[in-house]
Amino acid sequence: MIQTNSYARFFENNPLCRLMGIEVPIVQAGMVWCSGWRLAAAVSQAGGLGLIGAGSMDPPTLEHHIRSAREATQRPFGVNIPLLYKHAEAHLEVCLKEKVPILVTSAGNPLAFSEKIRAAGLLWGHVVSSVRFARKAVEAGCHFVVAEGFEAGGHNGREETTTLCLIPMVVDAVQVPVIAAGGISDGRSMAAAFALGAQAVQMGTRFAASTESSAHPAYKQAVVASGEGDTDLTLKRLTPVRMIKNAFYKKVLEAQARCASEEELRSLLGQGRSRRGIFEGDLEEGELEAGQVSARIREVIPAAEIVQRTLQEFFEVCTRLRLFT
Amino acid sequence: MIQTNSYARFFENNPLCRLMGIEVPIVQAGMVWCSGWRLAAAVSQAGGLGLIGAGSMDPPTLEHHIRSAREATQRPFGVNIPLLYKHAEAHLEVCLKEKVPILVTSAGNPLAFSEKIRAAGLLWGHVVSSVRFARKAVEAGCHFVVAEGFEAGGHNGREETTTLCLIPMVVDAVQVPVIAAGGISDGRSMAAAFALGAQAVQMGTRFAASTESSAHPAYKQAVVASGEGDTDLTLKRLTPVRMIKNAFYKKVLEAQARCASEEELRSLLGQGRSRRGIFEGDLEEGELEAGQVSARIREVIPAAEIVQRTLQEFFEVCTRLRLFT
Repeated sequence: MIQTNSYARFFENNPLCRLMGIEVPIVQAGMVWCSGWRLAAAVSQAGGLGLIGAGSMDPPTLEHHIRSAREATQRPFGVNIPLLYKHAEAHLEVCLKEKVPILVTSAGNPLAFSEKIRAAGLLWGHVVSSVRFARKAVEAGCHFVVAEGFEAGGHNGREETTTLCLIPMVVDAVQVPVIAAGGISDGRSMAAAFALGAQAVQMGTRFAASTESSAHPAYKQAVVASGEGDTDLTLKRLTPVRMIKNAFYKKVLEAQARCASEEELRSLLGQGRSRRGIFEGDLEEGELEAGQVSARIREVIPAAEIVQRTLQEFFEVCTRLRLFT
Repeated sequence: MIQTNSYARFFENNPLCRLMGIEVPIVQAGMVWCSGWRLAAAVSQAGGLGLIGAGSMDPPTLEHHIRSAREATQRPFGVNIPLLYKHAEAHLEVCLKEKVPILVTSAGNPLAFSEKIRAAGLLWGHVVSSVRFARKAVEAGCHFVVAEGFEAGGHNGREETTTLCLIPMVVDAVQVPVIAAGGISDGRSMAAAFALGAQAVQMGTRFAASTESSAHPAYKQAVVASGEGDTDLTLKRLTPVRMIKNAFYKKVLEAQARCASEEELRSLLGQGRSRRGIFEGDLEEGELEAGQVSARIREVIPAAEIVQRTLQEFFEVCTRLRLFT
C-alpha cells in the first residue's frame, strides 16, 4: 500500500493545503447521517480534511462529535453547517466554543453569520453552485469556496451547471482557492478538477460509502449497487436534491407529473426522510441522497484507502498527461 | 500566433488522430444550421476534424456541402447524420456515393444502418449518452464513440449523466477510442477530458459561435451574451433538448408546468423552430440550441483560432499538472 505522506511533498505549495495545514488537497464533504467523527477523523488522519456534518445533529451531538474527532486525530478537521436547518446558529456557537479551526457553510446565505465567523477568526468556506454565489461568498468574507456541480448528491443549485462548466468559471471569477465538488470519486476526476483550475477536491458520495461512514450498511450497498441514471435531481419546486431512484422517489415523481401542489409535495416529503433512508437503511421509503458517481462506486472501503487510491491514480493521470509537455 | 502543426507531433500516437488521419484530436460537432462546408473545412484545415451536419439539410444540399468541403480542403472531414430525421437513409446514400471517409451518427439506433455502413468501409462513430448506448454502438460495429454529457447543447440523453461522470465509465466499458463531448470549449476542459481518459474532444457550441458557422449572427451573439443558468435541458417528455432560455422556451416551460399534453407540446414546438432560431436569427420565437458552455464563450472568432487557442491552453494545463509527476 502506498503511503499518503509519500505524496505530501507534491502539495507543499498547494494554497489550500497551506491554508488548512493539511497534507493532501482532498476534502471529505460534510454529509447528513454519514460524516460523524469517525469518518472525519479517518480522512484527516489520512492527510486530507475531514468534515463533521452538522446537518443531521442537534448541538450537543455536534459537540460530542467535535470532541471525539479531536481525541481521534491531532490533524486539522472541520465542521460543515448547512444554513437551511433550524440549528444552524446553535451549531455555529458550538464550533466557536470548541474552537473548530475550519468551517464550511452550505445551503443558505453566507452573510447570515459572516460577522460572527470572521470575528472568531475561523478559516471559512462556503459551498456554491454558481459564479454569482461564489462572488457573494467571497464578499461575505470566505477564505475559500467549494464549487459544486449538478452531478453532486444531496441539495443542489437550481441552475444545473455541471462541475465541468462551473469550475473554470468560478476559478476565473474569484481570487480565493476553489475546491471542486460534484462528480469526483477518484484520481481521474481529481485530475480533471485540477485541469479545470481547482486547487482541491471535495468528495461526498465516495466517502458516504466508506467503512467509517455512519450511514446504514444497506444505504452503502444501495450506493454500490447503483448504475448510471439511477440518481435524479428532483423536488426542484421545493429544494432541489439528488437522490437514488427508489419507491419514495417514484412517489415524488408521480406527484410532480400530475402537478401536485407544493403543500402535497411537502407533506409527501414529511420529516426525517433522509434519516430513514441513510441512517436507518429504509431503501424503499427513505430519501437516499447520493451523487451521480454512485454509478462509479463498486465497493465499500476504508476512508484512508479512498485517499490513497485517489492520490495514486491522480499521479498516474498527471504522468500520462506529462507526455504532452 | 502559435501554429497548429507545431503541436501535431504530440499527438502522433493518439489513436484517434491515427485512425482519422488528422493532426490534433479536436472534432467539431455536426450541428443543425451551423456546420456547413465552410465550418467543417476550416476545422479540418486547422488540423482537427470538421463535420458537416446533415440534420438541417436535404440530400442534394448535403451533396453540395460535401463537394464544397472537398474543394476547400484536402484534409479529412466527415458528416454527422442524426438518425431521428426522415432524410437519414438518403443522407447515408449521399455519403456513400460521395465516398465521405468518416461518418458520425447520432440521435437514434446505430444498428439501423450498420450493415450498409460497414459494408462500405466507412470509419464510423456514434454519439452516446450512456455506457449502455456506448456498448450498443460498439456491438453495431462503430470504430469510436462520442460520449456526450448532460451539459451539451441540442438533443441529449434522458439519464442526465454529466461529462465528468460519463467519460470514465464509457472509457472503462468499451475498447474503442472515446471522444468526449458536452461542456468542452477550451484547453482546460480538453485537458479535463483527457484526464478522464478520452482520446479526443468534440466541441459544438464553441464552433457554433465561430466566424465560419452558418448560424445567424444574432444567434452567435445570443450564445456570447448567455451567462450561467441561461440554458436548460427541456422538452424531456418529447426529445430532451438543451436550448437558451428565450420567449419560446418560456412558453414550453409554462406549458410543462401546467402539465400540458404531449400533443400540445408537439404543436407548440411545431416545425422549423431550430431553423427559425439558429439560421434565421429569431431570438424570441426560435429554438436556440446551445450548451452550458455558452456561459463561457465571450467572442465569435475564426474556427482555426479556436483550435489554436484550445491547443495552447491544453498544453499549458498539461505543463501545470506536470508539477505533480
